[in-house]
Amino acid sequence: METLVYWVGMAAVAVNALTGVLDAGRKQMDLIGALMVGVATALGGGTLRDLLLDRNVFWVVDQTYLAAALSTASVTFFVARAFRLPSRLFLIPDAVGLALFTIVGTQVALQWHAPWLVASLMGVITGAVGGVLRDILCNDVPMIFLPGELYASAAWAGALSMIGLQEVGVPAVAAAWAGMTIVLGLRLAAMHFKLTLPVALPQKKP
Amino acid sequence: METLVYWVGMAAVAVNALTGVLDAGRKQMDLIGALMVGVATALGGGTLRDLLLDRNVFWVVDQTYLAAALSTASVTFFVARAFRLPSRLFLIPDAVGLALFTIVGTQVALQWHAPWLVASLMGVITGAVGGVLRDILCNDVPMIFLPGELYASAAWAGALSMIGLQEVGVPAVAAAWAGMTIVLGLRLAAMHFKLTLPVALPQKKP
Amino acid sequence: METLVYWVGMAAVAVNALTGVLDAGRKQMDLIGALMVGVATALGGGTLRDLLLDRNVFWVVDQTYLAAALSTASVTFFVARAFRLPSRLFLIPDAVGLALFTIVGTQVALQWHAPWLVASLMGVITGAVGGVLRDILCNDVPMIFLPGELYASAAWAGALSMIGLQEVGVPAVAAAWAGMTIVLGLRLAAMHFKLTLPVALPQKKP
Repeated sequence: METLVYWVGMAAVAVNALTGVLDAGRKQMDLIGALMVGVATALGGGTLRDLLLDRNVFWVVDQTYLAAALSTASVTFFVARAFRLPSRLFLIPDAVGLALFTIVGTQVALQWHAPWLVASLMGVITGAVGGVLRDILCNDVPMIFLPGELYASAAWAGALSMIGLQEVGVPAVAAAWAGMTIVLGLRLAAMHFKLTLPVALPQKKP
Repeated sequence: METLVYWVGMAAVAVNALTGVLDAGRKQMDLIGALMVGVATALGGGTLRDLLLDRNVFWVVDQTYLAAALSTASVTFFVARAFRLPSRLFLIPDAVGLALFTIVGTQVALQWHAPWLVASLMGVITGAVGGVLRDILCNDVPMIFLPGELYASAAWAGALSMIGLQEVGVPAVAAAWAGMTIVLGLRLAAMHFKLTLPVALPQKKP
Repeated sequence: METLVYWVGMAAVAVNALTGVLDAGRKQMDLIGALMVGVATALGGGTLRDLLLDRNVFWVVDQTYLAAALSTASVTFFVARAFRLPSRLFLIPDAVGLALFTIVGTQVALQWHAPWLVASLMGVITGAVGGVLRDILCNDVPMIFLPGELYASAAWAGALSMIGLQEVGVPAVAAAWAGMTIVLGLRLAAMHFKLTLPVALPQKKP
């Protein structure tokens, strides 16, 4: 189980690095810019979680994560110069990465004895802040804050469900699988059926 | 006194969450985007202070702050969809929040034995970084860095006065009230009399 | 040696504060905005390194750094209002600052027993993140991510060389000087010969 989570976590890092590099391409950054944005996208969410919880930052302790992010980012950079890849290709791996990061982030926070609402937010942060950081570094409004198919909200629903299930006595592993299924299911359903949230309205000028 | 500070701090969190959501409306974010910007605005300043001082992050320890930010942000989101509120309404609560956050942030840093210049900056960070984060997440130049009525400078003047008064022997509580009065007085006077700072000039192109 | 590093580090802080204020001028920020951007540029890289490594933040422990950043930023602000300075003037001090910050950052991370790839990235972060933060606060795409003469890549090459030299038995001080020479040499050569990295290409729309 531990080993499975480790390798799927590594895969999620790689997928996130890849989306960061593709976005850097849209801004026509150079190699080092693309690598830095890729690494920040891959490691940013877990880093913020670890800083907020005052844990050792996961990729400082085990640099395999950093190596995975850097090598995926490099390969993506050169492949994407040779072939123009449609970024749609990566929406499903990205949804899997979101589900996994969210559940791992929530579990880490619970083990750290964070209160439940904080733990659910740590799940969302682990899953979604990498993409927010990517958009800030690319000087865009974070995509997941703009109207679109459920993303952070799917993550939050899954994190809260997992915590709720544990609370009513469901074993941790089963609750984790349920939470992951909810994140992934909601995200895929949202992409397929165009599920969105209500949008904020601009206010009168002061 | 402790209890008073706690509840006024909670009120400052709520007011900041509200301004974040209103700003998210200007960018037509969706519900989750507005909530995230609201929470970041409300908790961002104190979070950066706690990370820099290596303290436990205040809202991770006591999740009432997070709950207050989230519930205020949610209510604001739906009220602002129903009625278009002039954001001018919130300038005075915001000034009170600035004064309180600044003084609490400075006091926390002093108790943590931070040197005086650092402590005064921690006050400014606690009071003003939430708004800076809000503007970054909305992809704007931080409003408080642009020419306008005194804001961060009012906070800094109050923080430095409070530290100076303690240094010359004024009791901590009296110095805190004086500092808060200075922040609030300067900010309100600046809004009323359009007090501003000198503006930087663009340099020659290299 | 220690004393030399301390004072050159202080000089690097001052140069970075200066470039931050000049950039704030381009955005016509006011005095407090320019000071805040100057301080963030000067201290941002080392701060992120210290947070990631879970060390005490360097300028919270020794506020001389903060005082140096603030006073340089203030002087720059008023001088730049009186005389319009060509920012080209500062490219060479900036390259020296990059070299020094990179080597100091890498050395700090090694002493903290960070693994080698992490330590090299900490060097790049210490040297280059201040400028990234400056550009984010000014609402620009970080300059060092865009096509241009080698900058972060020069820093990384120097950091990796220094670590490699130490690994093969070169004494730490000699390796540090070699690393610094590589960063500075690469950066100056890049500016003179217009050395650049390959650029990412935009992908097809999904």
